[in-house]
Amino acid sequence: MDKTLSNRAIFTEGDDNIFVTADVACKAKARDPHVINATIGTLYDEMSHFSTVPLFDEELKKCLTVNGRAYTFTDGGDDFIMGIKHWVFGNYYEEITNKYFTSAVAAPGGTGAIALAERCYANQDQTILIPSIGWKNYEAIAMQASCKSDYYNLFKDDKFDLEGFKEKLTEVAKKEKRLFVIINNPCHNPSGYTLSIAEIDKIVTILKSFTDIPVVLALDIAYFDYEEEEKSRNFFNRFGEIPANFLPLICFSASKTFSIYGLRVGALLAVTQSKEVIDNFRVTASSVARSIWSCPNHHALTAMTNILNNSEKRSQFKQAIDKKCDMLEARGNLFMKEANECGLKTLPYVSGFFITITVKDSDKSLKDLIKHDIYLIPVGPHNLRVAICSITLEETKGLAKKIKDIVE
Amino acid sequence: MDKTLSNRAIFTEGDDNIFVTADVACKAKARDPHVINATIGTLYDEMSHFSTVPLFDEELKKCLTVNGRAYTFTDGGDDFIMGIKHWVFGNYYEEITNKYFTSAVAAPGGTGAIALAERCYANQDQTILIPSIGWKNYEAIAMQASCKSDYYNLFKDDKFDLEGFKEKLTEVAKKEKRLFVIINNPCHNPSGYTLSIAEIDKIVTILKSFTDIPVVLALDIAYFDYEEEEKSRNFFNRFGEIPANFLPLICFSASKTFSIYGLRVGALLAVTQSKEVIDNFRVTASSVARSIWSCPNHHALTAMTNILNNSEKRSQFKQAIDKKCDMLEARGNLFMKEANECGLKTLPYVSGFFITITVKDSDKSLKDLIKHDIYLIPVGPHNLRVAICSITLEETKGLAKKIKDIVE
Repeated sequence: MDKTLSNRAIFTEGDDNIFVTADVACKAKARDPHVINATIGTLYDEMSHFSTVPLFDEELKKCLTVNGRAYTFTDGGDDFIMGIKHWVFGNYYEEITNKYFTSAVAAPGGTGAIALAERCYANQDQTILIPSIGWKNYEAIAMQASCKSDYYNLFKDDKFDLEGFKEKLTEVAKKEKRLFVIINNPCHNPSGYTLSIAEIDKIVTILKSFTDIPVVLALDIAYFDYEEEEKSRNFFNRFGEIPANFLPLICFSASKTFSIYGLRVGALLAVTQSKEVIDNFRVTASSVARSIWSCPNHHALTAMTNILNNSEKRSQFKQAIDKKCDMLEARGNLFMKEANECGLKTLPYVSGFFITITVKDSDKSLKDLIKHDIYLIPVGPHNLRVAICSITLEETKGLAKKIKDIVE
Repeated sequence: MDKTLSNRAIFTEGDDNIFVTADVACKAKARDPHVINATIGTLYDEMSHFSTVPLFDEELKKCLTVNGRAYTFTDGGDDFIMGIKHWVFGNYYEEITNKYFTSAVAAPGGTGAIALAERCYANQDQTILIPSIGWKNYEAIAMQASCKSDYYNLFKDDKFDLEGFKEKLTEVAKKEKRLFVIINNPCHNPSGYTLSIAEIDKIVTILKSFTDIPVVLALDIAYFDYEEEEKSRNFFNRFGEIPANFLPLICFSASKTFSIYGLRVGALLAVTQSKEVIDNFRVTASSVARSIWSCPNHHALTAMTNILNNSEKRSQFKQAIDKKCDMLEARGNLFMKEANECGLKTLPYVSGFFITITVKDSDKSLKDLIKHDIYLIPVGPHNLRVAICSITLEETKGLAKKIKDIVE
C-alpha cells in the first residue's frame, strides 16, 4: 500500500466527465459538421466561432508586455479591485459602496474564488450547503477544503424551493452553529434559472433570520453577465442592514465575461457593514491566496483593469456583452418555445448558457441522442444539459423536437 | 468580534515585506538612476531591462489565440507533461525515464507546486522541514496547508550541515512517523549555495535511512536553470533504487526560466519506482488542483509546450538561458572576488540570483545602506540579500566594498 500519500489526500472527480464527453463530441463534430455539440460551457457565436470582444482582445495583446509578465500583488492591486467592484456592482456601484464596506481579492477563476471563500470562512468538517441540482465541482471543492457537502432542494413547482431552503438551513444550523451556503445565481448552471426579486428578498430574510450564528452566503455569479442588470446585480443591493454575523461573499469569474476561461482570472468580493469584517477579509483572503497560488495572472488582469477603469471602454465592453446576451436569448427563447410546443420537459429556464431537459434515464437517453449525432451532458439520473451557448440559432431550430422524438 | 471567519483562517505574512522594500527601492531608482536597487528577485539584463528570450516572446504572442484562452486539462495535458519532463530532467531524461516512473501536474508557479505537494503528501499538523535560512514563504505555505514548520540547520563551516540535517530528521521522524522535507537547490534562495554531488549523495543516504516511515522530499528548483546541468539536474539521477516509502517530488517554477513570473506556471513532478505511487500521484494531485484553481494558464503553458517539445527550439532556448547564466555568473564572481578582497562576509555562494551578506544588525545596516542609496532585503537579524539578478555588472563593480564601508 502507498503510504506516502497524506491521510487527507482524496481523489475527487469534479466535473471531469464533462470534459470527456465534450472531447468525444468535439471529435465527432470535426468529422461531421452536422453533429450537434451542445456539451461545451463556452460561448460560440453564430459562425460557430469562440466568441470574444475585439476591444478586449486588443487590450489583451497590448498587455502582453514585460510588465504583464512580472509579479503583481496577491490581491490583484488597488486598480484591479476598483475595476472589479465597478463591474460586479454595475449600476448599483454608488449605492452599494456608499452603504457597505466592500473589497476584493483576485483568484484563479470562479473555482479559485469559491475555494478561497471556503478556506477563509468554513471550518474543517463544516457543511457547505449547495443546490440539489448544480455544478458537480461544488462537491469536489468542498471535499478538498476538508468540508462536507449537503444539499438544499432547489426547485418546487418550477420555482426556488424557499421552504426546502429554510428547512435545510435550520437543520444544519442546529447541528453545526454555523452556515455556509452557496447560491448560483443568476443563470443557474445547469438549469438557467434566475431568481426573481421577490425570491431574493425571501432568501435574504431566511439567511438573516439566523441571528446568533455566523452565516456566510457565497454567491456564485459565474454567468451573471448573461442576465439583465436588474436581475444580475440587484441581489448585491438587497441585503438591507447587514448584521456582523452575516457575510455575503461574491465569487466572480472572468472566464465567461471576458472569454478567458483558460487564463484563470476571478475574484472573491465581500460586502459588509463591519470595518472589522472587511479588514479581516482582506488580510485573510490575501494570506490564503499568497500561500497557495501566490499572485494572479498579471497579464490578463491588467487587460481587464484597463477596460474596467476606463468608463468609456467599460461602457463599450458592456454593449458588446449585451449583444452576446441577445444572441444567447434568441437561442434560449427558440428552444423553450419549441420545447413547450412539443411537450419536451425542462427545468425552469430564464437565461444563461444552459437549458436542462428532464428524461427518464439520462444515460440511456444520451446514448440514443449520440446515435442521432446530438451530444449533451448528463446531470444526475434524470437530466441532460443542453449548452445553447455553444450551438448556433440555426442548430437550435428544431432541436427540442428532435430530442423529444429520440428520448421518448 | 468577527465570528464569520473560520477557526483555521490565519493571517500569514509570507515574504510580503520583500514587496514593500522593493516598491520603495523602485521609486527611489526612478527618481535617481544611481540608486542600487538590489531588492528584486527578477532577472534584468545589462541594460537594466527585464530579461526575456525573444524566441519565447514570439511563441507567447503566437499562442494568445482563442485556443490559449479556452479551458485546458487540469494537469496541463500530455504534451505539457512530456515537455516539462524533458526540460526538468535535461540531459538525464533518458536515464531517469528508463529507470523510474515519472509524471507531472501543472500548478500556478513554484508556490502552487509546493502547496500542492503539501496537500497531497503531508498530514494536517505534520511538520514541514525547511532550511533554517530560506524563503520566508515556506512557513506561510505550510501554515495555510494546516501544517507546522520546523527547521534543519542549513550551514556549518560554509557547507551543508549534514549532521544537523540528520539530527533534525531523526527527531521529527521519531515524533511523527512521517517526514516531509523541503530542499531548495541549486542556487539556494537567498545564499546562492548549490550542493555538491558528494553532499547530494549523503543527503539521499540520510533520507533513505528512514526505511519504515513515509519520507517525502520536495525539491524546490525555482532557480535551477541558473546552474550548470551537472549540478542542477544531477540530483534527480542520484536516487538509486527508490523504495516505496520514499518519494522524491520536484517543484518546478516557470517564472525564472521563462521570465513569466506573473503568468503563473509551474509543475509538481514525481519520481518513483512504484506504479501505484505514480498512479496515486496523478489522480490525487490533479484532484487537488482541480478543486482549488481548476486548470493552469493555458496560454503560457501552450507557449512553453511548443518550445519544449520541439528539440530544435528547445536547444535554442537552452542556449539563450545559458547566456543569461554567464551574465549572472560574471556579476556573482565579481561581487564575491571584491567581497573576499575587502573582507565582507557572505553566506557560501555558488550561483544563482542572490548573494547574502552577514552583518551585525540587518535592520540597522539596511537603514545605513539606504542612506547611501543601496537597497537590499533583510533576511533574519544578521543577513541582507543582494539580488545580483537585478543589477548590472557595472553596478556590481565596487558594490561589495561600498557595502563593507557602510555596514562597519
